Amino acid sequence: MNYCSHCGQPVSFSIPEGDDRPRYVCRSCGTIHYQNPIIVAGTLPTSGSRVLLCKRAIEPRKGYWTLPAGFMENGETTLQAAARETQEEACAEVALENLYTLINLPHINQVFMIFRARLQGSFHPGPESLEVALFEEHEIPWDTLAFPTIERTLRHYFADRPQRDFPLHVSDITLEDRQRYFRGAAS
Amino acid sequence: MNYCSHCGQPVSFSIPEGDDRPRYVCRSCGTIHYQNPIIVAGTLPTSGSRVLLCKRAIEPRKGYWTLPAGFMENGETTLQAAARETQEEACAEVALENLYTLINLPHINQVFMIFRARLQGSFHPGPESLEVALFEEHEIPWDTLAFPTIERTLRHYFADRPQRDFPLHVSDITLEDRQRYFRGAAS
Repeated sequence: MNYCSHCGQPVSFSIPEGDDRPRYVCRSCGTIHYQNPIIVAGTLPTSGSRVLLCKRAIEPRKGYWTLPAGFMENGETTLQAAARETQEEACAEVALENLYTLINLPHINQVFMIFRARLQGSFHPGPESLEVALFEEHEIPWDTLAFPTIERTLRHYFADRPQRDFPLHVSDITLEDRQRYFRGAAS
Repeated sequence: MNYCSHCGQPVSFSIPEGDDRPRYVCRSCGTIHYQNPIIVAGTLPTSGSRVLLCKRAIEPRKGYWTLPAGFMENGETTLQAAARETQEEACAEVALENLYTLINLPHINQVFMIFRARLQGSFHPGPESLEVALFEEHEIPWDTLAFPTIERTLRHYFADRPQRDFPLHVSDITLEDRQRYFRGAAS
């Protein structure tokens, strides 16, 4: 951030009076530009014993497999965001179930939320997907998953499934976790 | 938003190519300025059978009672944000328990998250609080709570407590819910 989005004058990066951390502050009109984490919402769609995954058509991680998920938009709920992303990436209608993973990613200022969902009817790739397919547990492409959030969500799911109990899992992925993941992942 | 925070030139509000909703787009450098919902994180701190509430020293809803909560910052997790806000508003250390309410507020682009927490030791008002106190259920100031999110979280808590089971409650508060709440609330 270089300029004030309100008045167009240069901003400085400094601690406002009464605050305890630096912000972008307009030197002209005084507007303080707060920056906050973004929610990534999506689903874990299942059909019987199979899980739906999408092969990414866009960077980052083009060609790798992901659960349908993306940035939550203003004016919608987390559930609406999760269902919309599933519609956009997999052209799939889903019946949403519980919030299943909430993963903090403080190094990239994101909070990742996946809802379990039951696939309703057909699916096909949206513009951001090369391919959409259903996988049995033994078919999951563990070595070509797009992100550590996806791997973690799927690991929880297959660990919980024998008990038929799917509690919310809240956890963090740190920069070190992420680096370890991408070193280990096929690239 | 009037100006591009990257180059300082005027922005337009229009649908970028390949997108499906209007964004602030720089007419000069082409930067698209996405806007996304913000997370408000906080705690429901308890000590034995009592619940901690803070009387707000700042607008909006100055003088009304709230659970300690505020905007999540970049670089932290939802749990860290909840604990930090509790420290700032009530000068209280807490041991965090489960995520307890997640309330979507699509009309104001917020997602509200409250974690249950056990109060550890003492407390006193921080700069944003006029007063901090512990309340038994029959002492809760229902008519002078600050926000519908706070009322809803407390209602869930007292309904769940007899069963000693505190599952996550995910719900929405709409503009109509909010208007109804503020018409009914003392003002």
